[in-house]
Amino acid sequence: MRFMRDQHQSDNLSPSIETLSQLPTTEILGRRRAKIQEAIKEGEAALISAGSPAARNFPANHYTGFRASSHFLYCVGQHLSSAMLLLTRNNASLYVPTPSPSRALWHGEEKSFATLAQEIGCEVRALSELESALASLSNVMRPPTYQAALKLKLSALTGRDDDPRLDLTLHHALVEARLLHDDEAIKQLRYASSLTGLAHHEGLKATRHAKWSHQIRAAMESPLMACGANLAYAPIITPHGEVLHNHAYHSPIASGDLILADVGAETPQGWAGDVTRTWPVSGEWSETQRAAYEVVLRALKASTALAKPGVEYASLHQKTREVLAEGLIDLGILRGSVEENLDANSVALFFPHGVGHLLGLDVHDMEDLGDLAGYASGRERRDTFGWGYLRLDRPLATGMAITIEPGFYQVPTLLKDPSWAGPSAGKMIDWDALSRFNDVRGIRIEDDILITDDEPEVLSAHIPYEVDELSQIIRS
Amino acid sequence: MRFMRDQHQSDNLSPSIETLSQLPTTEILGRRRAKIQEAIKEGEAALISAGSPAARNFPANHYTGFRASSHFLYCVGQHLSSAMLLLTRNNASLYVPTPSPSRALWHGEEKSFATLAQEIGCEVRALSELESALASLSNVMRPPTYQAALKLKLSALTGRDDDPRLDLTLHHALVEARLLHDDEAIKQLRYASSLTGLAHHEGLKATRHAKWSHQIRAAMESPLMACGANLAYAPIITPHGEVLHNHAYHSPIASGDLILADVGAETPQGWAGDVTRTWPVSGEWSETQRAAYEVVLRALKASTALAKPGVEYASLHQKTREVLAEGLIDLGILRGSVEENLDANSVALFFPHGVGHLLGLDVHDMEDLGDLAGYASGRERRDTFGWGYLRLDRPLATGMAITIEPGFYQVPTLLKDPSWAGPSAGKMIDWDALSRFNDVRGIRIEDDILITDDEPEVLSAHIPYEVDELSQIIRS
Repeated sequence: MRFMRDQHQSDNLSPSIETLSQLPTTEILGRRRAKIQEAIKEGEAALISAGSPAARNFPANHYTGFRASSHFLYCVGQHLSSAMLLLTRNNASLYVPTPSPSRALWHGEEKSFATLAQEIGCEVRALSELESALASLSNVMRPPTYQAALKLKLSALTGRDDDPRLDLTLHHALVEARLLHDDEAIKQLRYASSLTGLAHHEGLKATRHAKWSHQIRAAMESPLMACGANLAYAPIITPHGEVLHNHAYHSPIASGDLILADVGAETPQGWAGDVTRTWPVSGEWSETQRAAYEVVLRALKASTALAKPGVEYASLHQKTREVLAEGLIDLGILRGSVEENLDANSVALFFPHGVGHLLGLDVHDMEDLGDLAGYASGRERRDTFGWGYLRLDRPLATGMAITIEPGFYQVPTLLKDPSWAGPSAGKMIDWDALSRFNDVRGIRIEDDILITDDEPEVLSAHIPYEVDELSQIIRS
Repeated sequence: MRFMRDQHQSDNLSPSIETLSQLPTTEILGRRRAKIQEAIKEGEAALISAGSPAARNFPANHYTGFRASSHFLYCVGQHLSSAMLLLTRNNASLYVPTPSPSRALWHGEEKSFATLAQEIGCEVRALSELESALASLSNVMRPPTYQAALKLKLSALTGRDDDPRLDLTLHHALVEARLLHDDEAIKQLRYASSLTGLAHHEGLKATRHAKWSHQIRAAMESPLMACGANLAYAPIITPHGEVLHNHAYHSPIASGDLILADVGAETPQGWAGDVTRTWPVSGEWSETQRAAYEVVLRALKASTALAKPGVEYASLHQKTREVLAEGLIDLGILRGSVEENLDANSVALFFPHGVGHLLGLDVHDMEDLGDLAGYASGRERRDTFGWGYLRLDRPLATGMAITIEPGFYQVPTLLKDPSWAGPSAGKMIDWDALSRFNDVRGIRIEDDILITDDEPEVLSAHIPYEVDELSQIIRS
């Protein structure tokens, strides 16, 4: 089994800002739009909004760096605040605010309509003309709007609220188009992964002298910013990996702690990396930390080996459950056989979440469409604790990008009441054995993977995860 | 005239995270709430919301680090997502989401109601009880809501939209309370300024080897993050200072450029610093750069010297206009006398914005209330170009914090059509002389100032601004 950890070494050098700033060609954008346009009936349309900057504490004080919506970026490739793309079966028009001298005074010269048209490969019109363009259309479909103010505006413009039933044709078309990545998207995902590697490398190096988790955060985010890149999501950088969505950044760090760092870069075009590594603060693994870590790593490797076209993603989740069960039995933490533990769902007590998700322009790609992208037609989330959190349940296919992220956590809420995972889950635990693992609060190892016709391409393969590799960088 | 540049030296050492993380005492919070409660009539109430995390590209993907609304922070001191403070004349109750095991599973243990009550000094209740608490109240006033979804929710809860007329009593009470800073606020503003200094110091040191503006940005933001602090606003770090609100971060830098860096830290409690420095990339000032810079610096010093209780803030703006007029005449850029130039409004062509604003929990403090905080009762923005952008027009008073930020810019939009500033503004310009200043695109120097009974306390006095000081740090 080959993990392709040496592949794309040249890509793993940090891409230059000149490279990162390149816009997608009009051919790529045109092809993407055409895929969506094919699904639109005569007289109907799709309206895809960029959104606008979000206020932080008062209307004029925005979060740094406007980021357009992912559907818009897919079709337009630029972060154009307030812009809207109107697609009909035979036409694509971009509606943007008209450049004005007073905006130029404060915000500088804006691109002319002609420049935008040339860069994006479609006609560009004044936003003020959108209303009349919509008047003759019988159904203006749109993606769900995550900005409430925009939602109201679109409802007024189109005469109806967004509605998954009326918008479903568009939602399906977006999933169809974005599920399998084109060459430009793959290039961007490789960049995102390369950039993500810079962050993890600096995080590892900064850990030994850090006293607080925010110091590691600064070390990880700074090289991304210095490359002109962003973060794809609010990072998790914590000695308390057992809190699954831990967005507290001010935790003191002790030398016996493990640090869990879930940090992914976003390229300027908006494509995401999403990588987790876990490492010991001191560079030294305790025996229990190393043992638990090796179990999780085995699960990652075994699941990754399955990541091929035609394979059900759920089987990767199941493989992770099996390897974890086996490993935790070996460690004495679980009693009984692998089968008994799978039946009792005891693994979900230590690994409650799903093994991963789609990756693309969103870190959980197209999660705004509910499970439409993640779940194959006719499938629904399972009721079983653990399985219910699985974000992806469809057969893998070439061009799909996914994460694989097994973990081992001691979540107080679950260990206090193991019945969360099922009536007999708790009975499988050897509490004495578990108590020896007190210094293992949370471990996750997460890779980004591109499905190919051949072996999976591990986009994050250049980011080390073997215990000795990690120790060496920390101590360097 | 003494600028107190040596004052608070001990404060200027970066405050520790232990210090920064300290919550305001219940006494301070109680006093603050009481000031607002005094204005509330029997049977009426004020409802002050924290807000909730803003989505970045899909609902679950939030901007890093939830920041509560400033009015809420003023009264509660903690960033409690979705919380609402209900104030009546005689009672303060905080309504928060009830801690639940499923939230604990993903987000960790939350503070109990009892802990919050102890920390905040008021009763704490479940958010689900808010609706019935509101039922008996005749008028539930609130600050303007900058989050559209919250606005809808509050309208439903209170039976009416927010409305400046119906909410005016509360708005006035908030201005009354927040305009003059208490001791805790002043301590926080000093911390913010100290932290801001770290950013500027690192920015200066990073400039000489930077090729892109985002590299300087990384150098400036990283030490703030490493201290556990945030940014108070989207920073401006650019070789194109002539774009006044320049939020482009990917500008190439040439050795003859001036860098304009408008960067302010926010303390964990939410208090803002707001400091601008301008410096030459190479550390060497050209003759024209130095000359123009010295004019702006003279304006800053002269205006700061006026910053005393009872003095009209507008007179600082006027003083800046005078000193700039005088300086630009000296440089040959403007023709005629100071008086002629002030009459013709020619200075506004090079200094179009106001000389500063209130500073506090918001970088433009209480700007969400329109001009209620910035403008004394009965006053309105003036029509004159330049003056119209002045954010503060009231007499200064002890305890007020302000910025003073004169500048000199060559804004293409204005120089192309000087009639923006008035019919005869353009006639005052000596275009030949101006053309010699091509390497001066934008300069701003901005200090944070606390009004005291005595001399003004320049909070940012520890951040150098003399040309030789700046050169020395850049070259070091």
